[in-house]
Amino acid sequence: MTPQDWLATFAAALTRADIPAAVALFKPDCYWRDLLAFTWNIKTMEGKPAIAAMLHATLPTTAPSDWTVTSPAETDGDATTVWISFQTTTAHGTGRLTLKNGLCHTLLTATEDLKGHEEPRGQTRPQGIVHKADRNRQTWREARATETARIGREDQPYVLIVGGGQGGIALGARLRQLGVPTLIVEQNARAGDSWRNRYRSLVLHDPVWYDHLPYLPFPPNWPVFTPKDKMGDWLEAYARIFELNIWQSTRCESAQYDAEEWQVEVNRAGERITLRPQHLVFATGAYGPPRAIDLPGAGDFEGTLMHSSAYQTGAPFKGKRCAVIGSASSAHDVCVDLWEAGADVTMLQRNPAVVVRSETLMAFGFDLYSEEAVARGITVERADMIAAATPFALFAGQQKALYQKIREHDADFYARLAALGFALDFGEDETGLMMKALRTASGYYIDVGASELIAAGEIKVISGADVAALTPGGIRLADGREVQAEVVIACTGYQSMNETVAGIVSRDAADAVGPCWGLGSGIRGDPGPWQGELRNMWKPTAVEALWFHGGNLALSRFYSRFVALQLKARMEGIATPVYGRPAPVQRGL
Amino acid sequence: MTPQDWLATFAAALTRADIPAAVALFKPDCYWRDLLAFTWNIKTMEGKPAIAAMLHATLPTTAPSDWTVTSPAETDGDATTVWISFQTTTAHGTGRLTLKNGLCHTLLTATEDLKGHEEPRGQTRPQGIVHKADRNRQTWREARATETARIGREDQPYVLIVGGGQGGIALGARLRQLGVPTLIVEQNARAGDSWRNRYRSLVLHDPVWYDHLPYLPFPPNWPVFTPKDKMGDWLEAYARIFELNIWQSTRCESAQYDAEEWQVEVNRAGERITLRPQHLVFATGAYGPPRAIDLPGAGDFEGTLMHSSAYQTGAPFKGKRCAVIGSASSAHDVCVDLWEAGADVTMLQRNPAVVVRSETLMAFGFDLYSEEAVARGITVERADMIAAATPFALFAGQQKALYQKIREHDADFYARLAALGFALDFGEDETGLMMKALRTASGYYIDVGASELIAAGEIKVISGADVAALTPGGIRLADGREVQAEVVIACTGYQSMNETVAGIVSRDAADAVGPCWGLGSGIRGDPGPWQGELRNMWKPTAVEALWFHGGNLALSRFYSRFVALQLKARMEGIATPVYGRPAPVQRGL
Repeated sequence: MTPQDWLATFAAALTRADIPAAVALFKPDCYWRDLLAFTWNIKTMEGKPAIAAMLHATLPTTAPSDWTVTSPAETDGDATTVWISFQTTTAHGTGRLTLKNGLCHTLLTATEDLKGHEEPRGQTRPQGIVHKADRNRQTWREARATETARIGREDQPYVLIVGGGQGGIALGARLRQLGVPTLIVEQNARAGDSWRNRYRSLVLHDPVWYDHLPYLPFPPNWPVFTPKDKMGDWLEAYARIFELNIWQSTRCESAQYDAEEWQVEVNRAGERITLRPQHLVFATGAYGPPRAIDLPGAGDFEGTLMHSSAYQTGAPFKGKRCAVIGSASSAHDVCVDLWEAGADVTMLQRNPAVVVRSETLMAFGFDLYSEEAVARGITVERADMIAAATPFALFAGQQKALYQKIREHDADFYARLAALGFALDFGEDETGLMMKALRTASGYYIDVGASELIAAGEIKVISGADVAALTPGGIRLADGREVQAEVVIACTGYQSMNETVAGIVSRDAADAVGPCWGLGSGIRGDPGPWQGELRNMWKPTAVEALWFHGGNLALSRFYSRFVALQLKARMEGIATPVYGRPAPVQRGL
Repeated sequence: MTPQDWLATFAAALTRADIPAAVALFKPDCYWRDLLAFTWNIKTMEGKPAIAAMLHATLPTTAPSDWTVTSPAETDGDATTVWISFQTTTAHGTGRLTLKNGLCHTLLTATEDLKGHEEPRGQTRPQGIVHKADRNRQTWREARATETARIGREDQPYVLIVGGGQGGIALGARLRQLGVPTLIVEQNARAGDSWRNRYRSLVLHDPVWYDHLPYLPFPPNWPVFTPKDKMGDWLEAYARIFELNIWQSTRCESAQYDAEEWQVEVNRAGERITLRPQHLVFATGAYGPPRAIDLPGAGDFEGTLMHSSAYQTGAPFKGKRCAVIGSASSAHDVCVDLWEAGADVTMLQRNPAVVVRSETLMAFGFDLYSEEAVARGITVERADMIAAATPFALFAGQQKALYQKIREHDADFYARLAALGFALDFGEDETGLMMKALRTASGYYIDVGASELIAAGEIKVISGADVAALTPGGIRLADGREVQAEVVIACTGYQSMNETVAGIVSRDAADAVGPCWGLGSGIRGDPGPWQGELRNMWKPTAVEALWFHGGNLALSRFYSRFVALQLKARMEGIATPVYGRPAPVQRGL
């Protein structure tokens, strides 16, 4: 069956609400990933029964139509893939369909635009002016000044975003295009400070092709790896260009949901202001608060102790013995920074970590996001949709194969690292770095220089030894060894984002939502049951009108579109029946 | 003859230096426009003798090769056009070739990149970091801070650009990509103020597709017509993103060329600093200083008198009788602004002007720069090259046809305007607005609202009457009539850019260069002889190391590339024999 035939048959079955006939068109091992179009959720249906159940619940309100194949077929082994488009009662949809032997293996359906609320762009971009003399003319500058002065005071935002890093800024830009009144509150003084304030030597570990923000791609001469301060400047310029309303130097202190709106207390450079948005989005990072260092004897330690989030430069530690607890990205970067500053550096590795050479990862792992992809016509928007079309359940298998290749390619490198005592792993099921990032957001490092220092013995590694306690002069390990240290940097990671909610909304709300991030893979740090999607991210949570947005630049770029569409639909009063909304994790709210 | 055959024959003739054979491949009416590749100049050779003369002079040093047709042929009537590429001793070249009946009608050759100094982009973009621990690491922020602190002090720029509007900023961005140390001095306090400081209601008259800056196109949701303050913010963000070195609040007071470098005295917010660049670029606008109002009786006038360049808002003039001298763009916009403020407005029209409705011009005049063009794959870079491939001598004819269409389309509109006494023309040879812009940079208005006010009698027009003198209570016209006015705004235009040189370098230098802009068409304000290109713009002038860059956003975008390549070549010591360099216009230097 050709994709055209398949789609026509599928469309006909859906039109006559013949769910068994529709489901019969899928393989036994099949996946339908939906981004809002059917479920008003971000959800992957795995297997025929899950697909049938979803259709039973959503078909009457969705009434899909106009299914069209919009591209020539791409073939890869026994798989045939096409781009598709379709309509629902409320949305223009696009997607990707992969057939194997004439049956559907994977289907992606995604809302592209809301009917009647299409995002202005290209042909429908704003005019910028009405060409007519007008004694009541309000110029752009005057309108913008009025808006800036009133929002959060006379005019309440429909959406309040807590956090003005890449997540908040990308979402803010999307919402502005959709005409959703939005205010971003950010504790730092300047847009982009969330990058500028990190440690001195930080440079993005992902390449430019993967890091574009919405609407305004980096120019063709932008460096492959963006230095942190340059990224800060880009975000600041971006926020200005897209006319975002950001209150800088503003802390969100508390938030209560009451009578269909939030009451949010913020402190804006000393002034306490109550905001009343309809929706509250936490965009405070992919992570929550730093994981506190709670070690026996911490009070006795006579040296300098800090969490990596507070670390900025190794300069004060020149010539000092420094112990770095942890072996993921921050730990590696901090070790290099300390070494560059002339410190004596020991990494205390508690758990094995996956390390990949940046060069190798660029060559093997970013085929969709590269200059070659661009040359093949794969824009970042297309790349995002291609990536989104692979369900997380299948992604693990692809990654396992990738890491097999990487391990062979860099066998010498890994042997040298292991010889120096570094405890390597590739995840419990050998699926490598990206799966660790998705499952636990921890335990990996893209090597941009630290591993060579470790292999050369310039950074000492003590692995497999838990930290038992701090002593006045350093650290005592669980096996009894003492490590002398005048400086201890705890690169111990971050808590889940719902802990940020605990601090601002309530313990009950944080518990009702439960942890964010992770797929429910059942490995350590990502307990089951299997979710098939990232927990609580970019979609309705168990708490009304409370949302999480975040992730690296790529995830912020892609999913900001869907968060914005969900909020826009609610503002416009479009019915948004959520299929598979999570129930509160615990009683309480 | 196919384009492939033609190009192969042409290439063979050039290779064996058989100039008669090469020239025999051209039609009698033929045009070869060259942007640096052969001439290190911006020059159009018109007719076979001119082409032969140019080849005699340039072929030995240019040694062109690798001529290749790089696109399918486009046909239009009896014309067949292809994109081409070629190499010279120093350059990678591209161009466009149009054949009629197998012979060349027009040829464009342009330097794309300098060999060995190709601009980093795409695959060759900078890495942003060396992935290696380094105790002498200088971060991006540190390097940038050092550069900013030293330039103009310890380190002299190779190029000094006077003027930080769109021209200076676009050129600065090009030069930075090419690694040419550059400093921009700008008298306003903030980048973008050259737009912000203009009158309140100003909005760009050209559409977004025509206005992109290099490297970073406006996003797809940018308005069609950019309000002036939004443009100011864009330029400010752009300058930051491209890491331009701009000294704001800095006036260029004098400049002398001496011993192969300039000595330029600048006043930076009160501090006098001497700069020593190798090249000096005037990017102070397409125009020079305002054309002073020198009317008998100006001293007696008891009201407010100002040039349009100083006009910001009509607010102070509510209820007052205002006379606006002039009938081009500024005069129209100022009239509307005054009317909107509630003033009583009379336009004193000294000369006829061409008016085109914005909507009509968008529909008929911007086929290369539109959403439709983008949809057809005509990027702004392609559009610029297609536009550049039409020699100015042929452009007039195309424009004449266009204005015939426009006049028919808007016959009613023009009749209404004329009925109210507005003196319309379409140029001495009926070629319309763009030709006026190119020839005299004056005498035209894209209607964005004023004409309806004129047609409705809301703005009164007195035309064909020269201003004889100011009186205490207003204006006396040459025919003896008196116009009562408490406010006179002189929209009398600007002098040529070389007058800016007179103020900063010397009268002698300004005279040696002669006027800028204009094609030498022989019409009033654009005296012959025929130049075939814009005088003195973007190419070597009669004064060593003195350059002019400017024009609207589109011209600044396109020609900044060629100015930058010329400066880069000189910095790298590449031989740049200029064919057809202008001789000093007068003795003196």
